[in-house]
Amino acid sequence: MPTEHNDKASILSSINSPEDVRRLSVEQLPQLCADIRDFLISTLSRNPGHFASSMGSVELTVALHYVFNTPYDRIVWDVGHQAYPHKLLTGRREAFASGNRRMGGISGFPNPAESEYDTFSAGHASNSISAALGMAMASRLQNDTPRRNVVAVIGDASISGGLAFEGINNAANTPNNLLIILNDNDMSIDENVGSLNSYLAQLTTSQGYNNFRFKAYRTLRDLNIVNDRRKGAIMRFNNSLKSLLMRSQNIFEGLNIRYFGPFDGNDVGTIVRVLNDIKDMEGPRILHLRSIKGKGYAPAETNPAAWHAPGRFDIATGRREEDCTPDDGRMKYQDVFGHTLLELARRDPHIVAITAAMASGTSVAIMQREMPDRVFDVGISEGHAVTFAGGLAKDGMRPFVAIYSSFLQRAYDHIIHDVALQNLPVTFCIDRAGLVGEDGPTHHGAFDIAYLRTVPNMCIASPRDEHWLRRLMCMAAENNHGPLAIRYPRGKGRMAGGWECPLSPAPFGRGERLRDGSEACVLSLGPIAADATKAIDELEAHGHSIAHYDMVFAKPLDETLLQEVAEKNVPVITVEDGIASGGLGTAVAEWLSDHGYRRHVRRVGLPDTFVTQGTPAQLAALCGTDADGIRNAIEETINAVQQ
Amino acid sequence: MPTEHNDKASILSSINSPEDVRRLSVEQLPQLCADIRDFLISTLSRNPGHFASSMGSVELTVALHYVFNTPYDRIVWDVGHQAYPHKLLTGRREAFASGNRRMGGISGFPNPAESEYDTFSAGHASNSISAALGMAMASRLQNDTPRRNVVAVIGDASISGGLAFEGINNAANTPNNLLIILNDNDMSIDENVGSLNSYLAQLTTSQGYNNFRFKAYRTLRDLNIVNDRRKGAIMRFNNSLKSLLMRSQNIFEGLNIRYFGPFDGNDVGTIVRVLNDIKDMEGPRILHLRSIKGKGYAPAETNPAAWHAPGRFDIATGRREEDCTPDDGRMKYQDVFGHTLLELARRDPHIVAITAAMASGTSVAIMQREMPDRVFDVGISEGHAVTFAGGLAKDGMRPFVAIYSSFLQRAYDHIIHDVALQNLPVTFCIDRAGLVGEDGPTHHGAFDIAYLRTVPNMCIASPRDEHWLRRLMCMAAENNHGPLAIRYPRGKGRMAGGWECPLSPAPFGRGERLRDGSEACVLSLGPIAADATKAIDELEAHGHSIAHYDMVFAKPLDETLLQEVAEKNVPVITVEDGIASGGLGTAVAEWLSDHGYRRHVRRVGLPDTFVTQGTPAQLAALCGTDADGIRNAIEETINAVQQ
Repeated sequence: MPTEHNDKASILSSINSPEDVRRLSVEQLPQLCADIRDFLISTLSRNPGHFASSMGSVELTVALHYVFNTPYDRIVWDVGHQAYPHKLLTGRREAFASGNRRMGGISGFPNPAESEYDTFSAGHASNSISAALGMAMASRLQNDTPRRNVVAVIGDASISGGLAFEGINNAANTPNNLLIILNDNDMSIDENVGSLNSYLAQLTTSQGYNNFRFKAYRTLRDLNIVNDRRKGAIMRFNNSLKSLLMRSQNIFEGLNIRYFGPFDGNDVGTIVRVLNDIKDMEGPRILHLRSIKGKGYAPAETNPAAWHAPGRFDIATGRREEDCTPDDGRMKYQDVFGHTLLELARRDPHIVAITAAMASGTSVAIMQREMPDRVFDVGISEGHAVTFAGGLAKDGMRPFVAIYSSFLQRAYDHIIHDVALQNLPVTFCIDRAGLVGEDGPTHHGAFDIAYLRTVPNMCIASPRDEHWLRRLMCMAAENNHGPLAIRYPRGKGRMAGGWECPLSPAPFGRGERLRDGSEACVLSLGPIAADATKAIDELEAHGHSIAHYDMVFAKPLDETLLQEVAEKNVPVITVEDGIASGGLGTAVAEWLSDHGYRRHVRRVGLPDTFVTQGTPAQLAALCGTDADGIRNAIEETINAVQQ
Repeated sequence: MPTEHNDKASILSSINSPEDVRRLSVEQLPQLCADIRDFLISTLSRNPGHFASSMGSVELTVALHYVFNTPYDRIVWDVGHQAYPHKLLTGRREAFASGNRRMGGISGFPNPAESEYDTFSAGHASNSISAALGMAMASRLQNDTPRRNVVAVIGDASISGGLAFEGINNAANTPNNLLIILNDNDMSIDENVGSLNSYLAQLTTSQGYNNFRFKAYRTLRDLNIVNDRRKGAIMRFNNSLKSLLMRSQNIFEGLNIRYFGPFDGNDVGTIVRVLNDIKDMEGPRILHLRSIKGKGYAPAETNPAAWHAPGRFDIATGRREEDCTPDDGRMKYQDVFGHTLLELARRDPHIVAITAAMASGTSVAIMQREMPDRVFDVGISEGHAVTFAGGLAKDGMRPFVAIYSSFLQRAYDHIIHDVALQNLPVTFCIDRAGLVGEDGPTHHGAFDIAYLRTVPNMCIASPRDEHWLRRLMCMAAENNHGPLAIRYPRGKGRMAGGWECPLSPAPFGRGERLRDGSEACVLSLGPIAADATKAIDELEAHGHSIAHYDMVFAKPLDETLLQEVAEKNVPVITVEDGIASGGLGTAVAEWLSDHGYRRHVRRVGLPDTFVTQGTPAQLAALCGTDADGIRNAIEETINAVQQ
């Protein structure tokens, strides 16, 4: 059984910065790794977070801070799910235990605003190589002395993103000493896809050759036959060995990046030795480590996908809270989407689904199980997902692209150039729209309405409940309105059962008046309608009379409803779970202005800042998008007009 | 000397569709190629367009339409600079001669709205593989009979984009028969960069091996020793040959895409033979052709960069119009940017420049010549350009990122996640902002204000003339306001000389009142101020009194000026060269509404459609953003209020 993290005998409890790590002997490092694991298990079982990735990266993290002179040397973590051990070693052990992912606490991702050890923002995949290359060039241009080492740590899922390839392609081409560590556990949140990953698996089978090559290289270097500073000699050495021993081609060396590996990524002694051997070499290098997700906790090793972010769990039994939550009948929006997609796909063979490494997260997996040939999980490649959907749609298919709001930002140009320009019938099912909660600013789906609304031909809708999600999807499947985005939030809907209404299409471009009123009009978009209803109920209890419209569409706007609203000649309050600048409220204000109505428009939505982390309720309160905030906004608006 | 294109004896004159091409004998194809070249030279010398790429792709195009059953088989052209021969063979010969790139004429790029032979939108690089893969899967899922062949044609510059890599990575992983043709001329608009391109050059040196391998393969196939349908056998065959003959690793085969080449891309007989050999093979394949940009016209072969889009030229002398245009003293905005950047970089060693295959196009080349170590041309990799800039800025440098507006769309997420979230001092110098003219809808810089304005921490400015461009750049260099975008248009400024004012910083976030007036306020952003001035002059000549403010900043807005405007209590007309929905006008309307002012706001800008091609003057007239359109908008607004 793991020990408690407050065990006084642990080495971890004496580590307050990486300096303390570097004072240990190599022999003590395995114990430090064990301490970190115990601490992670103990803490995360109570205060949930990303588990399996961090369990797999313990040895790598310890070795990096042991060998490199952090924070002078830079470690850039890709995505950051794996960075909890890094947080524990860099002065945030107590903060992690008390406040990981909580409002006012520390971020679940590396966050430069939080620590000088967190060198660059993380959360969106594949950016580490480009960012680290920028740092390496900055150091070179500023002639930093001593030489600053820059290390990018990237997983095998993230390295398949186009941005990572662009980074590698450029890293090989500029004078720099970037070290790229490929932390390969053959396991992203969902199953890895793409030929690069088959390739990495194949590389592993050539481990004997690579290890031999590395040992031979060290021997020859010690004999002064090859020389780190004479790259040509090393390359010739490599090539001659290859001609003797080649079992598989090496893509990275084809791209002129020296390759080392694969080595055991859960053997801290090996990693320390290899890092010491290669850290002062000249030129860009890639070190390939094979590690095990969930390492050290049997339930997680057995089922790492389920333990990516398991929620609270019982340490002894490995029972996860999600397994034991009583069923309140409420469905997640993603599951309503997943089941509805399968129903629609059964009716129409032209429907296909595309996601980008989010098959479970978006519940596209529901269709995938029954129709694997019609579901494409393209890996972390949002741009490809959208352009690929464009090609499918151009030749007669009806693709549904399911991607989280904040990750779809990667495909902005692809939406414009490869879908909207040709007015192709691609349906974007935008999950995690609005505030997502504890994942914080990199993951909030704040911008989608604003950036999609100004794209010609694009339509944008949001369902106020599970039934409307089904009706909008049915509309998307049955009609051709060109590109259409349907946005819905993370988490459960509000209906206690009965989500599975008959499939009938929502009317295109039409909203709905939910109640009439005389003092003001509230126009809402999406599930936030329920908060607006609550706010209006409270105001009506105090004698006010407020009309409420669910616009359903942010584009095109329902002009019949807007005409009705405008002619009431009362203030308008718009309510949405996206940035207030550029969203539904802005669209309504533009329409009123364009049609000669000078009405007061109060826009309730997210502020023009990056919103922090917290529970969804805390964040909605912070942004004024909960029922209280909406009620206050309505009251202020009514009062301002009366003055 | 090339013959005239109306030569009755030419084969081309009898080609009205690819069916006609397929009726020719192989022996006639070289003559058809010669005819196409003559036609291109003759036509493009008078009606300018993209020249060198199309001259290099003549043989490939003829071979593709000869071997494949177009339009049933799909050819997807990447970017499309090279697609003129394709237009000539697909029923658009006369339309090309009379109206290429003209308003109401045919597009300079493949355009699905124009012809069924143009299978997908083109203009932004690297999308062909993903789009073609979508088409290949659509065909497979719909069980098209006979088997439909899908071919993506991509250049060596475009293949370095991350999207192309994502496409390749996925193409290798799904059951499809996609043929990727890498048309490699080692020459993008600017010099190629990146290790992939070094790699391609290296592949060429193994031509003997590859040709031998291909011949050996054909022999063994004819002897029925290997079999197209038994991929394993072929792979084993390949690998065993490799172990005998390997000179360089093959990245594509490492990624599980069968590789053929390189072959001579300007030898039509060879291409036809190879295409026939590989067209019915199963699985994804890549065919590597080496071709010469500008082939067949000596001045272009000698200097293909200058002949990428040479303008009008004299056929006999090779003298380009640009060389002979009289100097009117006016500078291109890009050159003012380039010279100013160099001046600033001389003063501050922290200033570096980054562009993405647009060193000449943005005039970053001016700094590059003097300071090659501080200028990074990262190739077609806009995402990497921005994230790399983020890394540089995070560690103390002051990067200026020069990218065209429409191409910067590729880096939208990178701007949010890797720059704005950390509030890093990256300056985006957005060239080609607004309507660009003949390149049409894929190239107009219509969206940048709208998509950047809603990103927290982002600042956006636009200079009304060359002096203001210098002053804004000086401000960006001397102060730290976090991420800042400076947008300016394609083409020349309006100052006849004297652009080189002393470098002093513009005041941050401050606009300027250009004239006072009592009936309405015009608020403009950028060089369109001159058109607004003209419009107001005309109205004043008819007794009107109109105030005019140059806002300079779309974000943050100059609230002092806006207060002044609001208190005049007159209608507001906003004027900008970007989409009217979401741009400056929207920002002004939001501010007025948020501050309790109910003013009529008329937004003059681009419509919510993809704007067609034409001269800049034609397009401005079409969109109502020229002086006439602005005058009409002001008049209508004044009259509406008076009614």
